[in-house]
Amino acid sequence: MTHLNGINKEDNKALVLHKANDLKLEIWPLDETLDANDVFLESKCNGICGTDIHLLKNGGTAGFTIEKPLVLGHEPSALVKAIGSNVKDLKPGDRVAVEPIIACAKCEYCRMGRYNLCPQSYIQSRGLPPMDGCIRKYYTHPSNCCFKIPDHLSWEEGSMVEPFAVVVHACRRVSLKVGERVLVCGAGPVGIMAMLCSKAFGATKVCITDINKSRLDLAKSLGADQVFLIDVKDFNDEKFAQNMNKDFGKIDKTIECSGVESSLSTAIYATRIGGQICLVGLGPKKVKVPISTAIMKEINLIGSCRIKDDYELAIELIASGKVNLKPLVTNKFKIDRALEAFELLKSNQEGVVKVMIEH
Amino acid sequence: MTHLNGINKEDNKALVLHKANDLKLEIWPLDETLDANDVFLESKCNGICGTDIHLLKNGGTAGFTIEKPLVLGHEPSALVKAIGSNVKDLKPGDRVAVEPIIACAKCEYCRMGRYNLCPQSYIQSRGLPPMDGCIRKYYTHPSNCCFKIPDHLSWEEGSMVEPFAVVVHACRRVSLKVGERVLVCGAGPVGIMAMLCSKAFGATKVCITDINKSRLDLAKSLGADQVFLIDVKDFNDEKFAQNMNKDFGKIDKTIECSGVESSLSTAIYATRIGGQICLVGLGPKKVKVPISTAIMKEINLIGSCRIKDDYELAIELIASGKVNLKPLVTNKFKIDRALEAFELLKSNQEGVVKVMIEH
Amino acid sequence: MTHLNGINKEDNKALVLHKANDLKLEIWPLDETLDANDVFLESKCNGICGTDIHLLKNGGTAGFTIEKPLVLGHEPSALVKAIGSNVKDLKPGDRVAVEPIIACAKCEYCRMGRYNLCPQSYIQSRGLPPMDGCIRKYYTHPSNCCFKIPDHLSWEEGSMVEPFAVVVHACRRVSLKVGERVLVCGAGPVGIMAMLCSKAFGATKVCITDINKSRLDLAKSLGADQVFLIDVKDFNDEKFAQNMNKDFGKIDKTIECSGVESSLSTAIYATRIGGQICLVGLGPKKVKVPISTAIMKEINLIGSCRIKDDYELAIELIASGKVNLKPLVTNKFKIDRALEAFELLKSNQEGVVKVMIEH
Amino acid sequence: MTHLNGINKEDNKALVLHKANDLKLEIWPLDETLDANDVFLESKCNGICGTDIHLLKNGGTAGFTIEKPLVLGHEPSALVKAIGSNVKDLKPGDRVAVEPIIACAKCEYCRMGRYNLCPQSYIQSRGLPPMDGCIRKYYTHPSNCCFKIPDHLSWEEGSMVEPFAVVVHACRRVSLKVGERVLVCGAGPVGIMAMLCSKAFGATKVCITDINKSRLDLAKSLGADQVFLIDVKDFNDEKFAQNMNKDFGKIDKTIECSGVESSLSTAIYATRIGGQICLVGLGPKKVKVPISTAIMKEINLIGSCRIKDDYELAIELIASGKVNLKPLVTNKFKIDRALEAFELLKSNQEGVVKVMIEH
Repeated sequence: MTHLNGINKEDNKALVLHKANDLKLEIWPLDETLDANDVFLESKCNGICGTDIHLLKNGGTAGFTIEKPLVLGHEPSALVKAIGSNVKDLKPGDRVAVEPIIACAKCEYCRMGRYNLCPQSYIQSRGLPPMDGCIRKYYTHPSNCCFKIPDHLSWEEGSMVEPFAVVVHACRRVSLKVGERVLVCGAGPVGIMAMLCSKAFGATKVCITDINKSRLDLAKSLGADQVFLIDVKDFNDEKFAQNMNKDFGKIDKTIECSGVESSLSTAIYATRIGGQICLVGLGPKKVKVPISTAIMKEINLIGSCRIKDDYELAIELIASGKVNLKPLVTNKFKIDRALEAFELLKSNQEGVVKVMIEH
Repeated sequence: MTHLNGINKEDNKALVLHKANDLKLEIWPLDETLDANDVFLESKCNGICGTDIHLLKNGGTAGFTIEKPLVLGHEPSALVKAIGSNVKDLKPGDRVAVEPIIACAKCEYCRMGRYNLCPQSYIQSRGLPPMDGCIRKYYTHPSNCCFKIPDHLSWEEGSMVEPFAVVVHACRRVSLKVGERVLVCGAGPVGIMAMLCSKAFGATKVCITDINKSRLDLAKSLGADQVFLIDVKDFNDEKFAQNMNKDFGKIDKTIECSGVESSLSTAIYATRIGGQICLVGLGPKKVKVPISTAIMKEINLIGSCRIKDDYELAIELIASGKVNLKPLVTNKFKIDRALEAFELLKSNQEGVVKVMIEH
Repeated sequence: MTHLNGINKEDNKALVLHKANDLKLEIWPLDETLDANDVFLESKCNGICGTDIHLLKNGGTAGFTIEKPLVLGHEPSALVKAIGSNVKDLKPGDRVAVEPIIACAKCEYCRMGRYNLCPQSYIQSRGLPPMDGCIRKYYTHPSNCCFKIPDHLSWEEGSMVEPFAVVVHACRRVSLKVGERVLVCGAGPVGIMAMLCSKAFGATKVCITDINKSRLDLAKSLGADQVFLIDVKDFNDEKFAQNMNKDFGKIDKTIECSGVESSLSTAIYATRIGGQICLVGLGPKKVKVPISTAIMKEINLIGSCRIKDDYELAIELIASGKVNLKPLVTNKFKIDRALEAFELLKSNQEGVVKVMIEH
Repeated sequence: MTHLNGINKEDNKALVLHKANDLKLEIWPLDETLDANDVFLESKCNGICGTDIHLLKNGGTAGFTIEKPLVLGHEPSALVKAIGSNVKDLKPGDRVAVEPIIACAKCEYCRMGRYNLCPQSYIQSRGLPPMDGCIRKYYTHPSNCCFKIPDHLSWEEGSMVEPFAVVVHACRRVSLKVGERVLVCGAGPVGIMAMLCSKAFGATKVCITDINKSRLDLAKSLGADQVFLIDVKDFNDEKFAQNMNKDFGKIDKTIECSGVESSLSTAIYATRIGGQICLVGLGPKKVKVPISTAIMKEINLIGSCRIKDDYELAIELIASGKVNLKPLVTNKFKIDRALEAFELLKSNQEGVVKVMIEH
């Protein structure tokens, strides 16, 4: 067990969800074996995402249910402490952003180059039942899911590679191209990242919507060309779309990050004839939307799920300065105060965007 | 007015819709000028489609409203009687299938090769307000919208090029490829044509759904590999989809031709992970569908609207015998009895599929 | 060593190339271990291909050099005799077509779904140095490279899945679509298969060229719509192309299977403006071609190399009867007379197309 | 003839090529009619391009031959003086970049959205026989080929929209994407523009080759990440490619702008496995290239010809400052000294990049 040499098992603090609303900080057993293709990692930072809050509140999310205590965390940055016998691309001391989902590399989806759809990966996703996540001091992980980050990136930036890779994937799914005009629906962390990513992909103008003015202010300060505040009272999707088109002009592509019914409706009305809408935000089981309008406008509604070979470009865009994610981090908590971080997010407090757990 | 030489203006019988439920057979004025790029046509056959029935019942459809008497008909075959001074590809005596929608050839959509989305074409669609249709003895039309059909095709087959071109367009929109397994939702004329077209595109297996057993029987007799009868009582989309997948296996692509909410839901549940759904059938303004499921399965929902350069392939497939549309024609009426044809279709009588008006 | 129970090691006859022109039939050691994901196979049939003849004549081919005795054979069909502990999709008694190239499943090419470009696979290709091939009674192979064939396919047809999958890949590389008109250059086994595959993909008309009349006669009898005999004396590529276009009409896509310089030149002249040429046949290190013409016609020249997830469709097309490869087998030899098979192919005898080695 | 009101016909100075090496400045007849869809333009600036020099030296180029005196010039910026009766998007006083090639809007290529391949356009290309070009004070042109430029762009920048649109088209033809690494072959005006355009499309790193050090110095100063000087003595394409890959790393896409045989060979060796090469530079009738290598690397060689709907993005990229073309203009000549401009370019003088004729 050479990888555990010098490691104190009492240090392996982990954030464990036992059942809905039962989250504890405790000492977790160390991973005792290090497979030939794995690396042994020391956690540095983990972002918290909406999925974590869902898990906490409901003991499950989108078909996943907590059945035994589960370590949370799937937005990790880490330090390589030891490497398995086959690992060639990494060495102890490397700083890495960790892709939390492990595909099988054998099924038809993996073979066709769409490993994000690998059925096996659904039970091999860190931080989702049944696979323990990354908010613990130490864990092992396949080396080909660990991507080096340059020295000038902070650990928080390393943690944000995961959510940013999600929007890179979305932009790729709709072939977002230089010169296009983009609407992003929803100005939460994912929406703001989608706005930044659209710009990095060459979008000429990007507008963004939300029901929360402070989020739109942040989006604006980070580069959104136009923002549209949604007033949920007497909201009329068709009229709102018309007004957006009048103010902002043509929308070639829309990235729907809110998962809200009226937001998708608005997107269908606002996106240009022949345009594309990327569906990212998960909402209720069913939503009522104007599909006939989508048909008559020959719009493509493109589902985008998770990450597929997007870490490298995500890191490249962050490292080159084309995308600056730092202003998104509004709150940081040391692991010992991790429970407070979750309380803060549950409170829906104004001005809270991305919350980080540091080790 | 050479093109009117020998033409008796009293022969120009036309089927004219004055307002909702006010359809008359009457003598219509002849088109007096023949532009340089136009041809002068003698009608031979016209199919009646659901849109015509909508117009008849409601005095309008999908944003189009009858404001003055309108000649119906947009599924025409015809004989070339005279040609304009610039016309080179056609000559008097040619038999043609007529594409009823006239694009502007100048707008951005025409320039990008998507003339089916040309805004101008929406007011230049024969048989839709405000442009008179083809159920009249004589009319002029741009020569580049007239496609020669070989002698061995019947006039009815020539008429069916139009609806068949719609499904050719749909199959192209989702890149339907050899070896794929296909679900078609709805076994009306369009659905059955979609099934036949899928086979011609190389689909290995095609299944089809409907609520009407006789339609499914026809679909089966024409080559559907499997049919699924929908019982609207206690219909459960998820379970129905699961059963289809159990019986039929994997569905790579779905062509939704019904426009029915539960049918699209079923399609989203039944189509494979990473698959595509072509949206063809227009339904109510909004429908409630499981978009989150589409996201998690990374499904593409692809709108398909009208026809774009699909006549040539449509004619090729019919003429080569790869697709046999003849069995779809269940009823023919001479122009003098055209009103009976509409009565028949309004009655929703079992066994009626494609109804033709002959001149 | 349960997989070797009842196997007589003296039965393991193999066709072994020691160096250029030094081919021997000998007893080869059995594969002693059976990995968890492997199957143990009994050879049934192996096609011989041009590459084998190159190896025999030159002791190497396209960058591969014989450095130790090598078992030949990479067009195999086989019977599953035993399975590794993890194998679930196959069982003893299954009849399989064997994909001879083993990709690593880890590199960037494998991850992006282009495992045919996996660098590791270049040293894991059965029948190419340094990996022993399949013309031996018994060998092990990864189960996910073995594809079941139905009972009504012969072992020879099973062997031809490999070369046919190569042309399936080529047709996919240029998105060969229903309704297109195709030129195939070269009427050897690969060219004829490309012609048959084009038809199965929906090509309306296919023409084919060769310098050998008997090959063209075979191609014609198997379904080529037009054949063009090339007279190498005073051959003029531009004129030949013009004549083909005059006789055959427009060529949307070309599949170049000959590797001959003048043939590729002709393809560039004959393929339509905006068309595509699939490059399949390997020729000399450099060839002189009219690239400026390709630019002005905005033609795409698309390299196609080996096989990528093409076995399933290849088997489907053969099994469904859409493609009939049986007439291509002109000669069969039992393994004991395998050397004669190679002599026959080296002799370039008229009328010899596909030669099979049976076990 | 209202459009000629106030126009002095003696002002219509034009640069006219009578035959090879017979270029004259003379007064040219005014275009007397103004069609409904045309505009009447006053020339402001015209770039000179390699094609012009070819025409001058050889009396023809790439299949075009001077048969009567021809006004040169196809890189024009101009001021709108009058508009035809149907023109709605432009008004007198607008500043425009002029797309010199006029497509028919009716042929199959125009209909499929590839008007750059329109056969009619080959005889409707300003500055190429038989259609007079733009180096004259006044001329008419279709309004939909005139694109407004904002006030802050100079007339020279307006002139460079044409050559820049050519490289926009090239980048689009190979789907150049954010994060890619690019090689540009040739550092003339087109090559340097291709480098700038690649960056604007999001390329991470771009390297460029040339035989001329001063051109590489300019490329470097304008943003090329790496430059490679080619020594034509003892040039070895394979070794040169290997060294580039060692120094620069992986090349995802190559844009070949030189038309030189050894340059294309080098591109095939240097471009990554599975990569793409855009063919832009026209060279001799035939070139000797390693096609077998392209096949084994499964490289796509993509022809790119002229411009197709690329003016808008070209103007957008220049106007937004993403691309700065100003440093490319090394020499300007008033129309009266236009012959000197051509002498300068014929002299191949070091340091001369883009030469402009001002009116």
